[in-house]
Amino acid sequence: MKATAKAHTNIALIKYWGKRDESLILPMNNSLSLTLDGFYTTTTVDFQDSLTADQFYLNDRLVEGAEHHRVSAFLDRIRKAAGRPDAFAYVHSTNHVPTAAGFASSASGFAALAAAASRAIGLPDNAQALSILTRQGSGSACRSVYGGFVEWEKGAEADGSDSYAIQIAPADHWDLRVAAVVLSSDEKKVLSREGMKRTVETSTFYSAWVESIPDDLEAIKAGIAEKDFEKVGEIAEANCLRMHATTLAANPPFSYWQSTTLAIMETVRKLRSEGVPAFFTIDAGPNVKVLYTPEHEETIRNTLQDVPGVHDIKVSRPGQGVSYV
Amino acid sequence: MKATAKAHTNIALIKYWGKRDESLILPMNNSLSLTLDGFYTTTTVDFQDSLTADQFYLNDRLVEGAEHHRVSAFLDRIRKAAGRPDAFAYVHSTNHVPTAAGFASSASGFAALAAAASRAIGLPDNAQALSILTRQGSGSACRSVYGGFVEWEKGAEADGSDSYAIQIAPADHWDLRVAAVVLSSDEKKVLSREGMKRTVETSTFYSAWVESIPDDLEAIKAGIAEKDFEKVGEIAEANCLRMHATTLAANPPFSYWQSTTLAIMETVRKLRSEGVPAFFTIDAGPNVKVLYTPEHEETIRNTLQDVPGVHDIKVSRPGQGVSYV
Repeated sequence: MKATAKAHTNIALIKYWGKRDESLILPMNNSLSLTLDGFYTTTTVDFQDSLTADQFYLNDRLVEGAEHHRVSAFLDRIRKAAGRPDAFAYVHSTNHVPTAAGFASSASGFAALAAAASRAIGLPDNAQALSILTRQGSGSACRSVYGGFVEWEKGAEADGSDSYAIQIAPADHWDLRVAAVVLSSDEKKVLSREGMKRTVETSTFYSAWVESIPDDLEAIKAGIAEKDFEKVGEIAEANCLRMHATTLAANPPFSYWQSTTLAIMETVRKLRSEGVPAFFTIDAGPNVKVLYTPEHEETIRNTLQDVPGVHDIKVSRPGQGVSYV
Repeated sequence: MKATAKAHTNIALIKYWGKRDESLILPMNNSLSLTLDGFYTTTTVDFQDSLTADQFYLNDRLVEGAEHHRVSAFLDRIRKAAGRPDAFAYVHSTNHVPTAAGFASSASGFAALAAAASRAIGLPDNAQALSILTRQGSGSACRSVYGGFVEWEKGAEADGSDSYAIQIAPADHWDLRVAAVVLSSDEKKVLSREGMKRTVETSTFYSAWVESIPDDLEAIKAGIAEKDFEKVGEIAEANCLRMHATTLAANPPFSYWQSTTLAIMETVRKLRSEGVPAFFTIDAGPNVKVLYTPEHEETIRNTLQDVPGVHDIKVSRPGQGVSYV
């Protein structure tokens, strides 16, 4: 009744932006990501008959309140699926996802938790079922079940049974690099979940966003297959800008960008104008991730580090999917 | 055969963004502006039989090339309208529109030129005809014919005969203030004309932009009538953000914003959170204009001046329409 799993976070190249079902976490559009080797969570789940409630430790500290509730509610799904509604567990998670780099630890966190808990309670090993389960903890986490390039199929069923991730290409298909730019001022990231909801409900541009996704997906998948970096970078950057544009047309409008966000975007554009192929992508926060190919590693690092307001650069390569330790 | 006219520039609160006819300068959507007393052009047009071509002096310097051609081509319309195709003129213009403040001098410039030339050549004084004429020199200039709050009706006719400005409220209706924030780095403003065209032709969000205008206009006109500053400010700011969002969804995407643009936007939002009602608007460039009411003059000035990258603050009040000197 005990298992340990490791899962990496992922960065969306085609963004997940908007839910059609808040409770089952069903998305409005397909998304596509790259799993990253640099940022991960390791989680041990140990079901013990002596327990009458789950005990959740994050980085060796007991967690209570809303965060404990979210983990426990997620374990309820697994207990139910296994026909063991009264099985409670010790959960020990260790996050190797620096908050300052602007990655949500929920992606690696829920993928590792789902994998460890499923195995510990004796559910059959099935990646598709694991992805569906993980999705219900945190939407984008369902992509972290797989390594490399991963697409989350939005599905059409009301119960979410066809909304899961599939691998497009494994991690060793293409040695891309992703530099996560750590900002000096750790300003509070606001609105990420609520902002998505507000955008779906009020943005004048939201339906055009959803309609724009199939073309992006088709093109970026061709680019990944051909290892055409310019193509993949251009599509990812344009998709990110289009996603952020939807927030500017929400009511009331809002933006995740800060002045340093713009400074990094300008730096990436300048690098391109100087012949260094680099592209940026930005999730629901001020942090910027820069995509490039290995031969430009040094230039990218040095240039980004010189931007005022940048504290550090954390580089990742394509990472593996869920593994058991 | 000689006349002198003065015209002020204007700031759009509901943006003109996209042409349906490039040659006649017919817009895709109605727009609404405030004429500003602080920035203006004075132009003298003197038709002389001795001339065989127009002579254009801007700030006492003879202008040749493309800029001369644009002025001369505009005078062709006036010569033709007056039945005097062979009448050429000395044109002396003085611009009181600092480029660094991010105002296009074309609005005050073409309004003053159209007024002075029309009167000099003997066309009847008619503000509506003057607005139609001015529009063909520079679209947003047609709003500068009037003072105070001005709406540019897009019209429906192919010949542009119903596309002109009308006054919504005179300058003395409401003492609003507009602070033009002058940036230290006079980075080249790119793409303003071409950017509009690219957005109309390629932006996924463009049609939703056009569809969003009637609601904005109705609401802002009610706000102006009621002198409801929060309402007017919120609508103007949201309209500006929505306009800029269309550029992020163009192909390829682009943005007029620089990091200092974001820093000023953040400062205005912070002022609001501290109880100082202030709103921003941004045209097709990096410069920001801040709207506020007179009682907050000192706070606004001091706060904006402290933003890194800000060189100066130029304050305007509602200004008059075209006048003859």
